[in-house]
This record gives sequence, structure tokens and C-alpha cells, in this order.
Amino acid sequence: MFEVEVKFRLRDREEAERVREYLERIDAKLLEDVVEEDLYFSHPCRDFSKTDEALRVRALRRGTLEEIFLTYKGPRLGSEAKTRREATVQVDNRDVLLEILESLGFRPVARVRKRRLVYTKENYTITLDEVDGLGYFVEIEVVTDSEDLADRCVRDILNFASTLGLGEDRIERRTYLEMLLEKTIS
Amino acid sequence: MFEVEVKFRLRDREEAERVREYLERIDAKLLEDVVEEDLYFSHPCRDFSKTDEALRVRALRRGTLEEIFLTYKGPRLGSEAKTRREATVQVDNRDVLLEILESLGFRPVARVRKRRLVYTKENYTITLDEVDGLGYFVEIEVVTDSEDLADRCVRDILNFASTLGLGEDRIERRTYLEMLLEKTIS
Repeated sequence: MFEVEVKFRLRDREEAERVREYLERIDAKLLEDVVEEDLYFSHPCRDFSKTDEALRVRALRRGTLEEIFLTYKGPRLGSEAKTRREATVQVDNRDVLLEILESLGFRPVARVRKRRLVYTKENYTITLDEVDGLGYFVEIEVVTDSEDLADRCVRDILNFASTLGLGEDRIERRTYLEMLLEKTIS
Repeated sequence: MFEVEVKFRLRDREEAERVREYLERIDAKLLEDVVEEDLYFSHPCRDFSKTDEALRVRALRRGTLEEIFLTYKGPRLGSEAKTRREATVQVDNRDVLLEILESLGFRPVARVRKRRLVYTKENYTITLDEVDGLGYFVEIEVVTDSEDLADRCVRDILNFASTLGLGEDRIERRTYLEMLLEKTIS
């Protein structure tokens, strides 16, 4: 299975509200309404920004429920591809996990917090994110069982995006982490 | 609360059987019957044997149930004291946790596997261990709310041990990990 996804930047809260109202009007189904708080760590003796790896602790909150995940992301494979090895375990206690990581020499370097709404409509998955410090984004995803259909999927996604009033000039290729780090540096 | 514990080396399976029969005869209550498989890891850029730290992944098996724990142990505090900072989280998948650790540069350096029976009788906790490659051990523990009573607790433990036929010459102060590493080196 291949995931094809395109992310678009929204102008402001009002535009995000309009996208949300449109999704509800066309009876897109709300799958998820969560808050994700991600902490990214530096390695004690390896420069992750050079090796293109990442270590993340995610707190996923659904109402009063909280789940904690530890994720390692390997380097991106190929130049264009967004493919990378990912390994995730669920952990029962965030504070103790942070204590273990810091004792081992890992240091928190970035925090990405977002409210995330996930909708589904036909074969599209539409994710509406409000990211602290960065603003509002929509990600549209289609899953295909053949890589040959990827171009076709992108065209479908762009068509769907245009019904939301989003043109190609609004495409955002960077990850939220990259955007936050660039913002911190500049 | 202070834990006072003394570990004794048993000669062989027969002696372990006799200890077990004695515990059952005096109606000691069996609390746990588990298999613990511990993997210890080296740090990617720190010599744990010099810093007196440890990172351990434990698989705890009760019948067909398996629980996985990640534990960091800080350096022992003081010269005599067995006190050290310990932080443990439960994790939902052993293989993925090992993949994450190895991706980050941690390497497995020792494996300690034991069958553990835990009994309780009055204020004593008696642990009977069969450790792969090391043999049979009994650990006797008493918990006290005052450090001043530690000497008294040790005397009680030695008395209890003598009823099991174990004198002070059978005391073993090393951890199983230390014993295994010394055995590997020699």
C-alpha cells in the first residue's frame, strides 16, 4: 500500500473554519479529534540533523484519555520519497520515560503541539491541524495499492483541494518540525 | 521504607528443592512464579561499567502472559548502600523496543534469564531463583520503616536463613549481571 499525501497551508482560523464547515456539509465523517504533543530529542553523541533521524515522544490526548508513544524515525530513503523506517512502542508513563531518556543523555530540542481533526470522505482522508506557533494546515491523503497510480492520486488530491479553495501555491512540503526549527533559527 | 535483603548461594537443584519443600511445609505463601529474561545494553558513547549505570529490557512471563519493562538504573549512592535511582516504564512490544534501542546505538551486552518463585512468610519475602548459567539462589528480604533497625533486620534474616541450613559463608553480594560478566571475562 502506498500513501500519497499533500499538505496545504491555510491563511487563518476563518479559512480553517470554512474548510471544516465544507467537510461537514459534504458529510465527511469525523474519525479523530485529538491533541498531539510531540517532544523531539537530540542524541547524546550523534547529530540527528546530519543523520536525518529523529526520536520522538508523543502524548496523544482524546478527551481525558492520554496515550504515550516512543518513536524512532530512520533517515529518509531516496531523494523524492517520504519513505523512512519508523518504529513505535506504546509506553505507560510519560514522565518516567522522559526521566529515562534524559538520564541516557537525550535532550529535548523541539516541541510540536497540535489539535488534529481527521475526516474521511470516499477514498480521501482529510486532516485539519491547528499547530501551536505555526497556524492551520490541511493534509489530504489517498491510499493506493500501486505506485503507478501515484500521479493519478496527486491529481485527484489537487482536484479535491480546489473544491476547498486551495490551489497548488498553498502546498507546504516541510514537516512541522522543520518549520518550527527554521522559525527558531531565523 | 527500607529494604534489607541478603542473597545466599545454593549448592545445587537438590538444595533448592529442599528449600522449596521447607517453605511449603511452614506454609509460606507463593506470591509469584515467573520467568524473567533481562537484556542489558551498552550506551553508544558512555561506558556504563565506569559510570555504574545500567539499561535493561525485561520480559516478565507468567504462564502465557508476557509483560515488557524498560529500566534505567543510576549509579549506586554511597559506598555500602545498595540504594540507586531506578526508573521503569512498561512497553507494549519487545521486538520494536529492541529495534529502537539498537537504531539509537545501544548494544546488548548481557542476558540474564531466571525462573523466580517468590514466597512470603510473616514479615519475610523469600525469593528462590534458578539463573541460567549461574545456578540456584535464595534472597531473603525484610522491609523496615527505620534505617536504625537495619542491623536487627540482618540478624533476623541470618536466623531465618539458618533454619534453611544456610550460613553466612553462603552469602553472595554480587548481582547476577556482575557474576555473569565476571564469568564471561574469566
